[in-house]
Amino acid sequence: MDEAQIKKDLVDMLGKDKVLIKDLDLMYYSYDSSFFTKLEPKNPMAVVLPKSTEDVQKVMRYAYDNQINIIPRGAGTGETGGCIAVSGGIVLDLSSWDDIVEIDAANMQVIVRPGIIHAKLNEKLAEYNLFFPPDPGSSQMCTIGGMVANNASGLRAVKYGCTEQYVLGLEVVLPNGDVIITGGMKSKAIKNVSGLNLTKLMVGSEGVLGIITRIRLRCWPKPKARGIAMAVFDNLDDAPATVLEVYREGVLPSGIEILDSSAIQAVNQFKPEINLPDAEAILLFEVDGNPPGVEYEGNIIKEVAGRRARQVEWATDPKRMAQLWEGRSVTAAAAARVRPDGSRVFAGEDISVPLSKVADALRAIRALGEKHGVQVVNYGHIGDGNVHTAPVINPENPEEVERVKQLVDDIHLLAIEMEGSTTGEHGVGVVRRPYAEKEHGLAVKYMKGIKQVFDPRGIMNPDKLF
Amino acid sequence: MDEAQIKKDLVDMLGKDKVLIKDLDLMYYSYDSSFFTKLEPKNPMAVVLPKSTEDVQKVMRYAYDNQINIIPRGAGTGETGGCIAVSGGIVLDLSSWDDIVEIDAANMQVIVRPGIIHAKLNEKLAEYNLFFPPDPGSSQMCTIGGMVANNASGLRAVKYGCTEQYVLGLEVVLPNGDVIITGGMKSKAIKNVSGLNLTKLMVGSEGVLGIITRIRLRCWPKPKARGIAMAVFDNLDDAPATVLEVYREGVLPSGIEILDSSAIQAVNQFKPEINLPDAEAILLFEVDGNPPGVEYEGNIIKEVAGRRARQVEWATDPKRMAQLWEGRSVTAAAAARVRPDGSRVFAGEDISVPLSKVADALRAIRALGEKHGVQVVNYGHIGDGNVHTAPVINPENPEEVERVKQLVDDIHLLAIEMEGSTTGEHGVGVVRRPYAEKEHGLAVKYMKGIKQVFDPRGIMNPDKLF
Repeated sequence: MDEAQIKKDLVDMLGKDKVLIKDLDLMYYSYDSSFFTKLEPKNPMAVVLPKSTEDVQKVMRYAYDNQINIIPRGAGTGETGGCIAVSGGIVLDLSSWDDIVEIDAANMQVIVRPGIIHAKLNEKLAEYNLFFPPDPGSSQMCTIGGMVANNASGLRAVKYGCTEQYVLGLEVVLPNGDVIITGGMKSKAIKNVSGLNLTKLMVGSEGVLGIITRIRLRCWPKPKARGIAMAVFDNLDDAPATVLEVYREGVLPSGIEILDSSAIQAVNQFKPEINLPDAEAILLFEVDGNPPGVEYEGNIIKEVAGRRARQVEWATDPKRMAQLWEGRSVTAAAAARVRPDGSRVFAGEDISVPLSKVADALRAIRALGEKHGVQVVNYGHIGDGNVHTAPVINPENPEEVERVKQLVDDIHLLAIEMEGSTTGEHGVGVVRRPYAEKEHGLAVKYMKGIKQVFDPRGIMNPDKLF
Repeated sequence: MDEAQIKKDLVDMLGKDKVLIKDLDLMYYSYDSSFFTKLEPKNPMAVVLPKSTEDVQKVMRYAYDNQINIIPRGAGTGETGGCIAVSGGIVLDLSSWDDIVEIDAANMQVIVRPGIIHAKLNEKLAEYNLFFPPDPGSSQMCTIGGMVANNASGLRAVKYGCTEQYVLGLEVVLPNGDVIITGGMKSKAIKNVSGLNLTKLMVGSEGVLGIITRIRLRCWPKPKARGIAMAVFDNLDDAPATVLEVYREGVLPSGIEILDSSAIQAVNQFKPEINLPDAEAILLFEVDGNPPGVEYEGNIIKEVAGRRARQVEWATDPKRMAQLWEGRSVTAAAAARVRPDGSRVFAGEDISVPLSKVADALRAIRALGEKHGVQVVNYGHIGDGNVHTAPVINPENPEEVERVKQLVDDIHLLAIEMEGSTTGEHGVGVVRRPYAEKEHGLAVKYMKGIKQVFDPRGIMNPDKLF
């Protein structure tokens, strides 16, 4: 079908304000936060900004009838090219459809539209002493719709799990225009085991099945107290060993972060005033709960970490907590500056491995960096084995680009070999797609079968996931 | 195909020890714990007791080629007829395949075969200071395979969620003999967002997609301390209001149970020495965590509940805790004895409603009991709106049976009307199947589509779920 005609039809259907067709506007949609789209940006043919389920239905039916690809997008903070119209099509930008439909505090839940920003939602929920626990690094920018599509998590997954754990129900518009409501059509129940769990199937499906237009989330009482422990290790293996010993003592911190020597150096180079101790690894524990409970667990962590660490500090004073956490807060920025001519690339950045293999994985990643001549900075959510590697290159240098591609491929393969996953939290998108069969084997056949059920014409976010 | 031939083939394929074909043996498989199967028991044509993935594959391929129904079964503690060969077929009894394949404490997980008993698993995990948090009432009997198939939960779902939250990966044998591994073929990762989430789709699928032959579960550090509060209310509405206020104070108990006046009377009649206070409702809160944290939250509950309750008691002494909990422990047994000639029937027994509607739901259920002339005893997991109703009738009296059927139908419809679900934790099976469309609408079409992908010949546990 003629592109000009499609653009005209979209404007006729939805009005000028909800459709972008100018090149300058479309360029913004040619990339997300992945390195992949820096190398291969790709404009969609048009962008639609829906504001209602009906808007989405109209576009979907039109696309379905005319076999046009539909690519949903939140805030574009993804790192896998998941929201890019790789082989053309219409991007549905859901970020401006950001209502909080209802905060139902009496039933410990909130109903939102997909575009609401994570931090903004939690700000509103705090007025009711509630919170939505998953805590991605991109909290200030990312949308709840994107988090659901990606099954996002972040710092607090150790204790609070991923987004999926909180999704009670969804409204989803399917390519043929059908609107389904998962988790019970009129339900406000917290517990429901009726029928196949379409809710959890949709979470993390990265837009390949349908468009999520309404999200019912469970909220939790906001914890009253928080504490931070920092432990400094001369031996890398002592870091995961300490994490395990803390668990064994019955303590489940809300987050456990690691900076290895590469990250420590990067932070000190970036902001010398932070002055992290020179070490093989630093662990940061965040504990939350009620005040005496937090104090008690802080003391256990101090005692347990003290068995192996050179130095341990525990703080509940907000100012001191912020200081202890500062090294972790700036790690991503610091990683980007380890070379004056370099940039961090987002690729191979969120593998997960079993906890018992974190130290080996970090060593292996450093060795791969050396092998390919690429500097890497390692940090991450050690509490659940989710390692963040920041490769730093000059992206203008094609030879370096080639080397980092090989490094990243090796990191993904390493993750699978080490009984981990190519992606602990950022998703598959375009860039982890080549590993689907290696990671899931025959299961991919059935994933494709499910896609066929929801999207028989293959218009939903093609070229992604598998 | 000839039944005698099938039986012979099964014995030839698997050996005499793994196949039951005698009527006396088969009779045991004609019922589960549902009232439905008391009314309509149904023998399968044969029972197979597999001990390996290969055993399951052999039976599945044979059944697939010959279009024979396959009905998986755990311990038969289900209350919905879910494991009954309603329209004939072979029952796969997985209860004797009960190995713990590996307790991988270093990676906070355990790998088991489907037949392992819940209580036995937690006993073993306790040696590592770990536990698998879901806590069904049938813990001493039910299998982990059954819990996964059903997405079981129980007392502790308020804080710890349902079984799905802990399932990291599954091995599943499909009707055509394909073996898929969900959550990553070789994975021992805790975090993994790669691909469509087949793991969570399988959890709660009640055997309509395939046979679960291996389960990888996340474990949690076992909490060190526990406390119980009992609060007694003269006004039913004060009970849910108190639950909400406890949440608002930032406290998330591990369990919150309610006994309404019908349950209080049943308990006192059954065991007068328990001597529960005569009241409209009793709430029991269980708090777990670390010792000072538990004490702190106990004090909050005491204070908050004290605003509305006639009487509140908080205990951490094990003996006193057991006394306070005793009323709840015997409720199910007590409900069965409220009439000398009566029995409790398991039907309409686990609806869930929004927390804000629990009191209205309990009143409505009592009114429905009166309308149909059936005595009911109400208790349940009020913390997540999961209400247990025990109708008590003389099951030998056809007229009473007819009345209870109507009552149960009304209770299910009430749940949907009150923005709840027909089943909060026991599943759909045969008995909630008539409500699938009412509860899920168009979504059922896509559930059926998914079933078709995994089970194109419709041999897996037919007549269930939808």
